[in-house]
Amino acid sequence: MHDLIQELTDLLGAAGILTEASDRVAHEEDWRGRYRGEALCVALPKTTGDVSGIVMACARHGAAIVPQGGNTGLSGGSIPTTPNTVIISTRRMNRIETVDAVEGSMIVGAGCILMDIHAAAEAAGWVFPLHLGAEGSCQIGGNISTNAGGTSVVRYGNTRDLILGLEVVLPSGDIWDGLRSLRKNNSGYDLKHLFIGAEGTIGIITRAALKLYPKPAESAAAWVGLSSVQNAIAFASKARKTLDTSLSAVELMNAEQVRLVLKHVANTRKVYDTDYPYYVLVEASSMRADGSIRESLEELLGEALEAGLIEDAVTASNLSQASEFWAVRHGVAQANRAEGMGITMDAAVPVSRVSAFIAEANAKIASDFPEARPVIVSHLGDGNVHYIAMVPAQDWETVGDKPDYVHRVRVAINDITVKQHRGSFSAEHGVGQTFVPEVGRYKSDVELKLLHGVKDLLDPRGLFNPKKLLPSS
Amino acid sequence: MHDLIQELTDLLGAAGILTEASDRVAHEEDWRGRYRGEALCVALPKTTGDVSGIVMACARHGAAIVPQGGNTGLSGGSIPTTPNTVIISTRRMNRIETVDAVEGSMIVGAGCILMDIHAAAEAAGWVFPLHLGAEGSCQIGGNISTNAGGTSVVRYGNTRDLILGLEVVLPSGDIWDGLRSLRKNNSGYDLKHLFIGAEGTIGIITRAALKLYPKPAESAAAWVGLSSVQNAIAFASKARKTLDTSLSAVELMNAEQVRLVLKHVANTRKVYDTDYPYYVLVEASSMRADGSIRESLEELLGEALEAGLIEDAVTASNLSQASEFWAVRHGVAQANRAEGMGITMDAAVPVSRVSAFIAEANAKIASDFPEARPVIVSHLGDGNVHYIAMVPAQDWETVGDKPDYVHRVRVAINDITVKQHRGSFSAEHGVGQTFVPEVGRYKSDVELKLLHGVKDLLDPRGLFNPKKLLPSS
Repeated sequence: MHDLIQELTDLLGAAGILTEASDRVAHEEDWRGRYRGEALCVALPKTTGDVSGIVMACARHGAAIVPQGGNTGLSGGSIPTTPNTVIISTRRMNRIETVDAVEGSMIVGAGCILMDIHAAAEAAGWVFPLHLGAEGSCQIGGNISTNAGGTSVVRYGNTRDLILGLEVVLPSGDIWDGLRSLRKNNSGYDLKHLFIGAEGTIGIITRAALKLYPKPAESAAAWVGLSSVQNAIAFASKARKTLDTSLSAVELMNAEQVRLVLKHVANTRKVYDTDYPYYVLVEASSMRADGSIRESLEELLGEALEAGLIEDAVTASNLSQASEFWAVRHGVAQANRAEGMGITMDAAVPVSRVSAFIAEANAKIASDFPEARPVIVSHLGDGNVHYIAMVPAQDWETVGDKPDYVHRVRVAINDITVKQHRGSFSAEHGVGQTFVPEVGRYKSDVELKLLHGVKDLLDPRGLFNPKKLLPSS
Repeated sequence: MHDLIQELTDLLGAAGILTEASDRVAHEEDWRGRYRGEALCVALPKTTGDVSGIVMACARHGAAIVPQGGNTGLSGGSIPTTPNTVIISTRRMNRIETVDAVEGSMIVGAGCILMDIHAAAEAAGWVFPLHLGAEGSCQIGGNISTNAGGTSVVRYGNTRDLILGLEVVLPSGDIWDGLRSLRKNNSGYDLKHLFIGAEGTIGIITRAALKLYPKPAESAAAWVGLSSVQNAIAFASKARKTLDTSLSAVELMNAEQVRLVLKHVANTRKVYDTDYPYYVLVEASSMRADGSIRESLEELLGEALEAGLIEDAVTASNLSQASEFWAVRHGVAQANRAEGMGITMDAAVPVSRVSAFIAEANAKIASDFPEARPVIVSHLGDGNVHYIAMVPAQDWETVGDKPDYVHRVRVAINDITVKQHRGSFSAEHGVGQTFVPEVGRYKSDVELKLLHGVKDLLDPRGLFNPKKLLPSS
């Protein structure tokens, strides 16, 4: 593979390729340290033409390619799995190319950091409403390739819903030009949607046209205590029917999740003296700057209290108090990492089934995995439940075969998700390496045949992100 | 093909198949009388299993299949084009199966009429916000297969955005079960989006899970007079930034379009005495029943008047006046049919390019097609312009080679759409038969290869809706 590295150096210049182990290492391991691989080198293209050139060089040498954005994923999707792999990092393709302030759209390079996109949109009087924990370092190409979710999906949809057009380099080295800022286009099979969420297995996204939204004039948030998930669902349904798209977040946590955040994360504090089994952080926003959204939220909370759907509620009296509420929600990842081994599910079920799903999962954990405690954080408005079987650090040491334990927990919970509730085992974090066994386990033969057909059509030699997304055929 | 008809009769019963010419005729011609074909028979399945059985029988006999919903299309997509074709009409698959009033979703058969879906959603306290002229007779399977647009796209998106899951019968006869009511699901290439807008060429949609929205408590509409498209774009941009998703329609018409409606459609009347070159029907809606949406709309109109973006505006003082405004917009199809031969484009360009597109198209018509008059009706908020080259009935008689004339007009305008503005020649009506030459003309070789690859992967024998959507490879 020495020749390949020479060819890539000729193509990209010495500054465009990382070959030393010490330079590669940050690209060869995920940030949680759960996945590690090895790459021949990390290529740093600046243009779409560079990406095409790298792909064709790798094809000539039979080298695999793993595309990588900010490497902030949770499923190991951007870590090499096979020998003779070139990582293509898009980090130098980070130009905000155009912002159309009239129609609210922008064209960006795949390597743009999400937070930089937020800033550019705001500077033009709009917002790009994709929000997730890693926004300071994740790249838009990775967000699109995993169809990232986050905390604003109930209002603005998944990443997929925010994409107007794409440019993609195919495994053939050809460039598919679908970079159009159009809100309507029905002129053949929708290839854009095929590449979104494909995790780099059939193409590398190089540029994207994004849909922007107006910036809300006001928002209001409340911290709500509830006695059951069933009530939380009824409250979320009422919130949606009352507020429609003014509802911008409905985040559910169980008491154990809140306890862990308060225990491990500095500058977080309890909102009530009383403890409740569940809490919901609800947020609403409006284009009117007249206090009406806070009024609407308080009306909703008043009616919900009266109807017995919620036990208690505090509306943030200012932005700083709203930030305190959000600090608890955003402290989840840090808290759970500090507490022990969290086996995290990324389940989605119909919203109306969330309560039954959680009850059945809790019963299963109690009976079969007594050392684990259910920790629950859910984008309730989307039916997306991060159900976490948390084994405290000291107990994790006593668990015997650890990979087998993780496997058994996942099968137990995902069986409930998929078989009992027609849900998905992979809602918003991507399949990556983590959920490949689930794809094989839960997809029908008809669907697996279609998925492999698409993969083989676009990447017949299987060089694009091998062993990700799909089990071997 | 006698054996095939016998097999289908055995499968469906005598009431499930139409073989007489007099029974077939309504299925063999489109409602405007522009496309005609011939079918061996019309099959009327009741279940997904029936559809699968028909597909397998046709495959054994090498018969082509044209799926058909309400046959309300404008592009000839549901009319046979080849000998030995069986039409599958979904009209008996018209059951509203479930309505989930908690999360706002429903599962319906492909043959459900759109208006029946509206009624069922409203009965459960929600709305299904897809609105188009044919809603009294079009079927949801056809709406999904063409990714229909309509007048509410600026607020609720295209049909694609309203679909949670699908069940599809493949050309192999296999059933793909993607009928899930999930708001998040990233577990492989998104096959749902591949079948939406595919016009029955790679699968027949049999059931769908739909996303519902809360019913707005109040709406307000205004009829606005403007001096230019450029101002209309600036007004639409301001409306979107002020109202966000409260903005539910921004429909543009030129003076000629309004004149034709007033001339040909009973019970329509002029809103102002003064004439303006352009008119916009703007509508906004809200969950608050306190008059605030009318207030917001009037504030917007006041500011727009002051800024010189609009010349005049009347806010509907009640529902009946709002209906009068909408009667003008909905009278377009009837008026244009009465006036003469309208060569209708279904163009989409970036919203900020609509003005330049219309100016260039007008110049081209004036110079090369002087007998035609530009009639313009546009879903301006989506950048979707139905640019119509209208040749009055008496002049149409004097045009020589009519198909050639139509072809030359389409090439002239669509060249401007695609080449000057990176737009689409097929925004919301489907490619059908009409725009197949455009697919060949404007798509890149890279894209055509991908589109044919997908078609060949799913329908290698080319029996599903032949000669639609894609040119021969």
